[in-house]
Amino acid sequence: MLYIIGLGLGDDKDITLKGLEAVKKCSKVYMEAYTSLLSFGLSPNGLSNLENLYGRSITLADREMVEEKADEILNEAKASDVAFLVVGDPFGATTHTDIVVRAKKLGVDVKVIHNASVMNAVGVCGLQLYHYGETVSIPFFTETWRPDSFYEKIRENRKLGLHTLCLLDIRVKEPTIESLCRGKKQYEPPRFMTVNTAIEQLLEVEEARGEFVYGENTICVGFARLGSEDQKVVAGSMKQLLTVDFGAPLHCLVIVGKTHPVEEEMLEFYGL
Amino acid sequence: MLYIIGLGLGDDKDITLKGLEAVKKCSKVYMEAYTSLLSFGLSPNGLSNLENLYGRSITLADREMVEEKADEILNEAKASDVAFLVVGDPFGATTHTDIVVRAKKLGVDVKVIHNASVMNAVGVCGLQLYHYGETVSIPFFTETWRPDSFYEKIRENRKLGLHTLCLLDIRVKEPTIESLCRGKKQYEPPRFMTVNTAIEQLLEVEEARGEFVYGENTICVGFARLGSEDQKVVAGSMKQLLTVDFGAPLHCLVIVGKTHPVEEEMLEFYGL
Repeated sequence: MLYIIGLGLGDDKDITLKGLEAVKKCSKVYMEAYTSLLSFGLSPNGLSNLENLYGRSITLADREMVEEKADEILNEAKASDVAFLVVGDPFGATTHTDIVVRAKKLGVDVKVIHNASVMNAVGVCGLQLYHYGETVSIPFFTETWRPDSFYEKIRENRKLGLHTLCLLDIRVKEPTIESLCRGKKQYEPPRFMTVNTAIEQLLEVEEARGEFVYGENTICVGFARLGSEDQKVVAGSMKQLLTVDFGAPLHCLVIVGKTHPVEEEMLEFYGL
Repeated sequence: MLYIIGLGLGDDKDITLKGLEAVKKCSKVYMEAYTSLLSFGLSPNGLSNLENLYGRSITLADREMVEEKADEILNEAKASDVAFLVVGDPFGATTHTDIVVRAKKLGVDVKVIHNASVMNAVGVCGLQLYHYGETVSIPFFTETWRPDSFYEKIRENRKLGLHTLCLLDIRVKEPTIESLCRGKKQYEPPRFMTVNTAIEQLLEVEEARGEFVYGENTICVGFARLGSEDQKVVAGSMKQLLTVDFGAPLHCLVIVGKTHPVEEEMLEFYGL
C-alpha cells in the first residue's frame, strides 16, 4: 500500500492522527523535498525532529528522485507499506496526480490522507472560498522570459467579481543554464517569490497590456507562512502592500473581487 | 482564547495533533452540529467516542445556538480557553467568518487550526484544483421555489473551460412551515441532497433555459463521504451517474471542464 499523506501547512504537529498512525506502520517513509524544505524550515535538525515524532527515518525525495525512482518506490509499495509525505494536501497546490496514476497502472493500492492546503487555508482572511475564480501562478520573470498568461485569467475572474488566488513561484533545485549546456548537474540557489515581487510583476504586465484589469489601488491580501504560528496576513491596495515586509517564505497573494459585507469586516481586521 | 478547530472530513482520527492538543487544554468544547451529525454519522455513541478521544465533554451547538448564544460562548473565551470544533476546515464550505468577526470585535483572541475540507479534498479525483471556477450551491427545489442562479455560474465556468464544484443542499433542523406560522418550533426531518437529485435538477434547469451549457452527456464526477474510509468517487456522464447509488451522505458533484491528459487518465480510474 502507498500512503500519500498530507502534512498540512504549519509544522510537524499539523499531521492528522490518521496520518501519524499510517506513517508509523510504514516500513519506508519518503518526504517530498520540493516545498517542504521551505515551508517547514527544515534543517537537518528539523528532519530529525520529524523522524523522532514519526518514529521512522525519512528519505527526502526531490523532484528528480520522484521522477527517476518512482517505479522503485512503487515496487516497494507493492510488497509493503510505504508512506509518501507531502506538505499541505496531496492534491493541493502541488499535485501528485502523476504518482497516483503510475501506482494505479502498476496495481499498487493507494490511500490518500487529506490535510489543509493553501487552497482552503486562504479562507482565514475572510473571503469566501466559493467566490474564487481560477487560480493563477505567477512565475519569476527573467530578461527574456516574461510569460503573462495569468493576466487573461485574472481579467475573467474580475469580470465575474471573483477573487483570484495567485500562487507564487518557488525555484528549488533548478539546474543552472551553464550546467545544462555542459550536461553536468549544478543547481541555482533556492528562490521563492515574495508578495512584493509578485505585485511588481503584476503591475508591469498591466502597464504593458493596458486593459485596466487591476491597478495599484486594487485591494489584495498578502499572506506569508500561511497556517504556521507566525503567519502574516495583510490586506491593502497593491501600492500599500508593496511597502510591507512579509518576511520568510512561503508567500501567496489574493486579488480581491467583489466583496460582501462580512468579507469587508474581516478584511478590515487585516488592514494596514 | 477561542480555538476554531477543523476536524477534517472522515472521522474522529482526522483531527491534527495540534488540534487535539488545543482541545485538551480547553475548559469548554463546542461542536457545530450542522454538518457534523451527517458527516461523522454521529449517534450519541459517536459523540462519546469523540469525548473519550479528546478527554473533554462536548456541547453540540446547532445553528440556532451559535446564533443566539455566540456572545455567551465568546465571553467564556475571554476568561478561558474555549474550543469550537468544525467539520472540515473552519473556512471551508461552511464558513465561520461571522463568529470570528464577533470575536475580534469583542477583543477575544482567535486561533484557527486548519484541516482538509471538501474544497481541496475533491482533488482526489485528479482534476487540478487550480482549474476550478466559482463554486456553486444546488438548493432543494420545492413546488414554488426553484432558484437557478447556479446556471449562469456554471455557464461562465464552462466558457472558460473550468471545472465546477457543486455543493449540495443539506437541510438540518429546518423549522416546518406550520411551526413558523404557529410561532412554536418544530423541525423537518434532516435531508441531504444526493448526486442523483442534483443532476435531475441541473438537467431540469438546462431544459428550461436551453442555452446548452451542459447536457446529459456532460462528464461529471460524483462523490459520497469524501475523505472517509468508504468514500465513493464515480466519473461518468450525467445520464450514467443518474443510475449510480452513492449511498449515505454527504454527496457533492463536479461538472468537468476542459481536461488535460493526466486529468483524463485519473478520471478513467473512476469510470463506470
